[in-house]
Amino acid sequence: MLDTTYRVRIRHRAGQLAKLAQAIGEREGLIGDVTSVKLGREATIREITVEVRDDDHAEEIAEQLDAIDGIEVLWHRDRALMRHEGGKLTVEAKIEVRTLQDTRDIYTPGVARVAQAIADDPALASRYTTIARTVAICTNGTRVLGLGDIGPRAAMPVMEGKAVFYRQFAGISAVPILIDASEPDDFVATVKRIAPTFGGIHLEDISAPECFEIERRLIDELPIPVMHDDVHGTAVVALAAAIVACRQVGIELHRATVGQLGLGAAGFGIAALMVDAGVERVVASDPNAASHARAADKGIAIAELDEVMATADVVVATTGRPGLIEPAMVRDGQVILALTNPDPEIRPDDALAAGAAFALEGSIVNNVLGYPGIFRGALLAGAEDIDLEMKLAAARAIADLAERSELVPDALDPSVHQQVAEAVREAAERSGAARPELAAPDL
Amino acid sequence: MLDTTYRVRIRHRAGQLAKLAQAIGEREGLIGDVTSVKLGREATIREITVEVRDDDHAEEIAEQLDAIDGIEVLWHRDRALMRHEGGKLTVEAKIEVRTLQDTRDIYTPGVARVAQAIADDPALASRYTTIARTVAICTNGTRVLGLGDIGPRAAMPVMEGKAVFYRQFAGISAVPILIDASEPDDFVATVKRIAPTFGGIHLEDISAPECFEIERRLIDELPIPVMHDDVHGTAVVALAAAIVACRQVGIELHRATVGQLGLGAAGFGIAALMVDAGVERVVASDPNAASHARAADKGIAIAELDEVMATADVVVATTGRPGLIEPAMVRDGQVILALTNPDPEIRPDDALAAGAAFALEGSIVNNVLGYPGIFRGALLAGAEDIDLEMKLAAARAIADLAERSELVPDALDPSVHQQVAEAVREAAERSGAARPELAAPDL
Repeated sequence: MLDTTYRVRIRHRAGQLAKLAQAIGEREGLIGDVTSVKLGREATIREITVEVRDDDHAEEIAEQLDAIDGIEVLWHRDRALMRHEGGKLTVEAKIEVRTLQDTRDIYTPGVARVAQAIADDPALASRYTTIARTVAICTNGTRVLGLGDIGPRAAMPVMEGKAVFYRQFAGISAVPILIDASEPDDFVATVKRIAPTFGGIHLEDISAPECFEIERRLIDELPIPVMHDDVHGTAVVALAAAIVACRQVGIELHRATVGQLGLGAAGFGIAALMVDAGVERVVASDPNAASHARAADKGIAIAELDEVMATADVVVATTGRPGLIEPAMVRDGQVILALTNPDPEIRPDDALAAGAAFALEGSIVNNVLGYPGIFRGALLAGAEDIDLEMKLAAARAIADLAERSELVPDALDPSVHQQVAEAVREAAERSGAARPELAAPDL
Repeated sequence: MLDTTYRVRIRHRAGQLAKLAQAIGEREGLIGDVTSVKLGREATIREITVEVRDDDHAEEIAEQLDAIDGIEVLWHRDRALMRHEGGKLTVEAKIEVRTLQDTRDIYTPGVARVAQAIADDPALASRYTTIARTVAICTNGTRVLGLGDIGPRAAMPVMEGKAVFYRQFAGISAVPILIDASEPDDFVATVKRIAPTFGGIHLEDISAPECFEIERRLIDELPIPVMHDDVHGTAVVALAAAIVACRQVGIELHRATVGQLGLGAAGFGIAALMVDAGVERVVASDPNAASHARAADKGIAIAELDEVMATADVVVATTGRPGLIEPAMVRDGQVILALTNPDPEIRPDDALAAGAAFALEGSIVNNVLGYPGIFRGALLAGAEDIDLEMKLAAARAIADLAERSELVPDALDPSVHQQVAEAVREAAERSGAARPELAAPDL
C-alpha cells in the first residue's frame, strides 16, 4: 500500500470533483486528504492523496484522471517521500547571537565559567546544558519495522519519526544515533561511551535475541534510564489495552490466564510485563525453541499454540504471521489482541463472529502512546532507571485515559502524554528511582 | 574576569544613570550592555552588565549601587550562567503532526517506503534524512579551553556553543557527542561506529598528542569529512590573518620565513598548513621535545626560541605563555601574531614599539570564522574529505573578506560564512573531493 499525492488542475465547472472522486473509486483507489493549493480565475489546483496498491496502480489512476475533460494531472508522487525531503529534524539554537555580548555569554569567555562550574559540581550539567532534556534513539537497524535487517542508515527515517513525536508530545530533544555494530559487545561499548551526552537511552529496532542482552547490560551499567521501546514500550501499551478490554468485558486481568503468541522482542516484553503486573498465569507459545528458556526464567509457561488458545482468557498475538488464529480456535468470551501489522493473526470481525467477547488489531496499539510520556516522566524525575513501578503507572494512566468507546486514548492528544509523564514521575518518586538533583527542572 | 548582570530599579530623576555609571567606574567595573526591562510610573527597571574581576568584586559593586539614593539592586548574577539555563540547543521537528495523514506520512506506514528506498539506494539517505545536513561535534573533554582535562560532561557548554554557531552561520544541525574515552583506540572505535548518523565529524578539545592520532585515523577510515577544529580550524584562520598582515606590510608570505612558537594542537596545525601553503621556510620552537619529530616529518625546522625570533619574517605564537616574547627579541619589520588568550606572548603595542611592522593578539583570530563555512562547503559538495585545497580556499576567502582596516572579517556577518562555504565547495569540486550524489542539495 502506498499513499500517492496527485496535483491536479481542475477547470471551474460544477461536478468536477465528483467526477474525479468517481474515477478514483472505480479504479479502487482510497481517497484521503483533499487540499486546495491555488484558486485561479479559470481553474483550481488541488492535491488529492489516494491510497493505491503500488506504483503501477498509481500510474493507472493518473492516466484515468488525465482523461477526464477539464482535469489535468500536473504530477503525482509518493507522499511519504515528498514529506521526507531534507529529513525531519533540525538542531536549533535557543539563543541568537547578535552582539559581542551574546558571544561573550554563550562562548568565550563566559562559557568557561559554566564549564568550570560543572567540573566543580557535576549535577549542574542538568541545569546548564541540554543533557537532561535529551534522549538518544539508538539503533543498529537489524530489525526495522517489517523490513528486517536493513542496516543503520536506512533505519534513519524511522528514528527521525520517533524523534518528531518526542518533540511534539513530550518536549524532549531526541537525537537519533545510528550504530554500525551488530555484536552486543560493540553496541554496548559504543552506547556507554557516548552516554554522558544524554539524559536517557531509547533503544529501537534491534533484532532479538541480541536486543535482550544489550538492554539488560545497558540498564545495569548506565546511571540513566534505558528502555528498548520494541520490548517495553510495546508492552506498556499492550498492557493498557488489555486492562481496558478486560474492564469492558468484566474479566479481572490479574486473575485471568493470559496467552501470549510469539516470544520475539515485543511478545516477550508483553508476557514479562503481564507476569510483573501480577497476572496469575501467563502461558506462551513460539515455534522458536531458543526463546523458551528466557520465558521460563521469567515465570512464563510454555505450551503449544492450541493449548494456549484453549486455556487463555486473554490472548495477545505478536507472531508476524497473518491469519494464524483460525476462528475454530477462538473460545467463547475470550479477549483477543491480534497485534501483527498490517495484517493481524485474526480479523476482529472474524474473532467476534467466532465467539470472542472482545477483539482488536494492532494498528490501535501504537507505541507512540507510551515512550514520549514514559521518558518525559523519567527525565522530570531525574530517574536513574525506568523501573517496574514506572511502567505499570504508565500502563494504568493510558488505560484510565481511554474513553468508554475507545480502547486506547488518542495519541495525537498532547494532554495524554502529559498525564502519562506525570504518572511516571510520581511513580519514580514512590519507587526511589527519582534523583531530584539531576532532574530537568524546566523540561 | 566575569560578566555580571545587575538588575536595578532606578527611580525617575535626572542624572541617575550617570551616578550609577560613575559608581561602577570608581570601583573599576567595565560597563557593557545597558537594557531597559520595564518602564514604570515612578521607576525604571534596567539590566546593566559589568565586567568585574570576581564574585567579591561583583558583590562590592552591588553594595555600592544599593547605597545610591533612588537606586535599588534587585539581584545580580553571572551573566553566562543566566544565559545557559536549560542549555543552548533543542532538536526540533520540521513537520508538525496534526492529522492521521501526517502520521501515515512521517511514521508508519509511509516511513517504511522511505527506509526501503534508502536500503535499495544508500545515496538517497542524503536526500530523505538529516544525515547529510548534520555534523557531530565530538570531544572527550581532555583539553577544554584553558581549563585542561575537565572530562566530557563539563565540556558540554563549549560544544553547545559551537553548535549554536553552526546553526546560525552555516544552517547546519550540529550534535554534540560527549565521549567517555581518553585512549585513541576507544575514541576512534566509538566515532567510527556512530559515524553513519552524520555528514561530518568535528573534533574538539582533545588533548595533544592523542588528538593527532585520533584525527589521522578517522580521516583515513571514514568516508566523510573529519576535522579537528583546534588543529585545522585554527590553522585556517591564522593563515588568513598572516596573509592579510603580509599584504598590509608588503611581505610575500610564500617567500618569507615563518616562525612558529609552540607545537601543541594549534601550533602544529598552523606550522603544517604554512608548509602546505607553500611557505619557503617554516621554523618552530617548543620546549617539549616530544613534539619535534612530528614537526620534522612535516618539513618544519626546529630551533631555539631566540633563533626563531631572529630569523622569522612572520612569527606566530601559540605557547600558552603570556609575556614570553620580550621586546628586545622583536626584529624591525616583523609581523607578530601573538595568539595566546586572553594574555598574549607580547602586547601588540609593545611589539610595534619594539619595531614590529604589524602585531595582533589572539582575540581577533577566532575559529568561529572558519569551521562553519568549511563544513558547510564540504556538505554542499558531498565531500569525502576536507583536503588541503579546501583549507587553503577557506583561508584565502577569509583573507579576501577582510577590509583594509580590519585584519579578519566580522564573524557575526552571515555573508562571510556563505562566501567561505562557496569557496570551499568550489575547491572540493576542483580537487575531486566532491561527490555530488551525496551532497545535501537544500542545506
